[in-house]
Amino acid sequence: MLSYHTCPLATLGGKDTGGMNVYVRDLTRELGKRGIGVDVFTRSQDEHVPHVLHDLGYGNRIVHIEAGPETPLSKDTLAEYIPDFIHGIQDFADKKELRYDLIHSHYWLSGLVAIELRKKWQVPLVQMFHTLAVMKNRVAREEDEVASELRLEAEGRLVRESDRIIAATQAELAQLQWLYRADTNRIRVVPPGVDTTRFYPIPKDEALEFIGSPARYCMLLYVGRIEALKGIDTLFEAMALLKQEGFLDIHPICLAIIGGDPDVSREEMSTEMDRLHELQESLGIGDVITFLGRRDQDTLQYYYSAAEIVVVPSHYESFGMVALEAMACGTPVIASETGGLAFLVKDGETGFHVPAVDPEALAERLKELMQDEELRARLGEQAAIYAKEFSWSNIIDQILELYASVMVSLEDELA
Amino acid sequence: MLSYHTCPLATLGGKDTGGMNVYVRDLTRELGKRGIGVDVFTRSQDEHVPHVLHDLGYGNRIVHIEAGPETPLSKDTLAEYIPDFIHGIQDFADKKELRYDLIHSHYWLSGLVAIELRKKWQVPLVQMFHTLAVMKNRVAREEDEVASELRLEAEGRLVRESDRIIAATQAELAQLQWLYRADTNRIRVVPPGVDTTRFYPIPKDEALEFIGSPARYCMLLYVGRIEALKGIDTLFEAMALLKQEGFLDIHPICLAIIGGDPDVSREEMSTEMDRLHELQESLGIGDVITFLGRRDQDTLQYYYSAAEIVVVPSHYESFGMVALEAMACGTPVIASETGGLAFLVKDGETGFHVPAVDPEALAERLKELMQDEELRARLGEQAAIYAKEFSWSNIIDQILELYASVMVSLEDELA
Repeated sequence: MLSYHTCPLATLGGKDTGGMNVYVRDLTRELGKRGIGVDVFTRSQDEHVPHVLHDLGYGNRIVHIEAGPETPLSKDTLAEYIPDFIHGIQDFADKKELRYDLIHSHYWLSGLVAIELRKKWQVPLVQMFHTLAVMKNRVAREEDEVASELRLEAEGRLVRESDRIIAATQAELAQLQWLYRADTNRIRVVPPGVDTTRFYPIPKDEALEFIGSPARYCMLLYVGRIEALKGIDTLFEAMALLKQEGFLDIHPICLAIIGGDPDVSREEMSTEMDRLHELQESLGIGDVITFLGRRDQDTLQYYYSAAEIVVVPSHYESFGMVALEAMACGTPVIASETGGLAFLVKDGETGFHVPAVDPEALAERLKELMQDEELRARLGEQAAIYAKEFSWSNIIDQILELYASVMVSLEDELA
Repeated sequence: MLSYHTCPLATLGGKDTGGMNVYVRDLTRELGKRGIGVDVFTRSQDEHVPHVLHDLGYGNRIVHIEAGPETPLSKDTLAEYIPDFIHGIQDFADKKELRYDLIHSHYWLSGLVAIELRKKWQVPLVQMFHTLAVMKNRVAREEDEVASELRLEAEGRLVRESDRIIAATQAELAQLQWLYRADTNRIRVVPPGVDTTRFYPIPKDEALEFIGSPARYCMLLYVGRIEALKGIDTLFEAMALLKQEGFLDIHPICLAIIGGDPDVSREEMSTEMDRLHELQESLGIGDVITFLGRRDQDTLQYYYSAAEIVVVPSHYESFGMVALEAMACGTPVIASETGGLAFLVKDGETGFHVPAVDPEALAERLKELMQDEELRARLGEQAAIYAKEFSWSNIIDQILELYASVMVSLEDELA
């Protein structure tokens, strides 16, 4: 398993950590449960952390490979250490006398590593993009959000050279087909799983006590990275509309933001955070918004369960893990009708769709749901039932089938 | 599930935390996996910790009940808050409209709670003692180690009134039969399980890097509470013997002690720790002993795997969880031939037995094993294979069978 630019054990909500980290971690653990041995290779970002960790159990390892300075690096500079990373992996495998049967690679950076290892090891490569540059560029509003040429080229190469591509949704399959001219015979749609043994509806009183909130506090919740693409500004504008028309006087609600670190002053991190702080001030909604900073993934179920509604206002999401986790906790989701979210959230059944970047539409749906406790309860119950389709015990079967099929095809080819 | 005096989520190695905490935690999780709903009731020892926690997943809860001051208390004073604890549990169950099918109680203090709840709820009571007062008194060397009359009486009552008693080993069954005149028809021998998905042999280089030890460091390891009954003094005396005869000059080894908190000055805690510090000084072995303090249960597998030998020099253990965890990590164990340890460790196969409180015998076995790398490897391999018999997937079947049988007998009785 290759996860070059981010460690699956990293705390979430930071600049480069999110659904993909959870995915790699949970997938590895579930493979372990099924008796599949996995080494996850990731670039070492801290020399003080032991380089080999057994945190996921079942004999499976997270291996931190030294490639470039052992500190966090921006994505722009990461590509240059790929050759070192490849050498590091080969050294590890040689020293331990390991032979891998398959490479499962995440994101385009790991894909570049995978293409080289595939050639050297002559084993099949299964690629997942998590986000696609072309789709990201379509919604980019700032120069620095535009994907690099290097990335666009790398994704093109990966589409041609991977033995299989896993698309999270039918939407991603269509994008690969139309925007990347991918051979659909080599694409399989397998959605990410959700750990329903942890993400389940926790009784409201218990969840509220855990997060330290008063029992009658009505919470809207955003969970995710703090970046422009996530559309948090749209959510702020919707809150301002509700405040202006006096709705918040009758229905006192508060918006909690989980993600980012309010104290971090790292340049890239703070740009969007600063913008949001300014925005909440200019909109006059500082009193109804709380920035909670990062939270351990192992405590998120309490926040999702405590929330009345979880909002995912992204301009684009290839999947939308947060929406799935929230639904698993029995909380209705209002999400932009875009990318994976349009497939994942069932409009009127498990929450609502709203057009991206449309504060008015979002405000309307928030009002509708906040006024109607019964509707919230019904959508929430349906959400929890629906989310079980994505439990790992279901998803891992599909992954194993995919692995088996690609190994058989390669054998056929070689025969 | 009742665990009155100690929370299954507490950090190990403290005064009242050990194998029983791990047992209650793991058993609850495994029951969850099998679809059994469990609430674990424990006395609240910290008002700042949320009272209901979902850390074990599967909808199962750890419920901290307020009974007496929300601080740690000595076992002597704990009994007086049992009525408050019982009320707290009933309040919780009433408020949540819960009806339990079975009570599984741990240690005599919880047993006293269980007897009352059994009467009120008319459900079967399964009792585990973990240690038996009569056995403890037999090895007590200090006045304050002697079990109270209250405890002896309580255990007697529990032997008579429990619907089933789980004995960890055949030794415990025999003790219940001969010392407590228990009806053996109501006793089942079910050993504790070990989480073999986490406790498995980690490659030595990886384990040593994790714990931050030089690669060629030969480590003996003790893990457990710091108290007289554990016989750590015997281990120190054995080390002194090895040092005196020059063995440590040829085989440089070091003894690491995990457990207790070197900085804690709480009276009861420090008595034995002080004694050990004085002893290591008077024996002149301070240079070969390191007190590491407590370690998170989730990191112990690295220490077990890094160690050449794990020593369990207890005067008495009803089971000996540390020996099982160490064996699961592929490390041979030298253990006192007493209580559960005499059953658990297979002499000459997975380690060695030595008579309790016999430094000479222990020193001899340490020498034998330290001199013979091949023997260590062979015993370690055998230990890892043997420990798999105690994997939870095996053990939980036996527990479920026991639950089913006691519920059926009660129905028969009522019919």
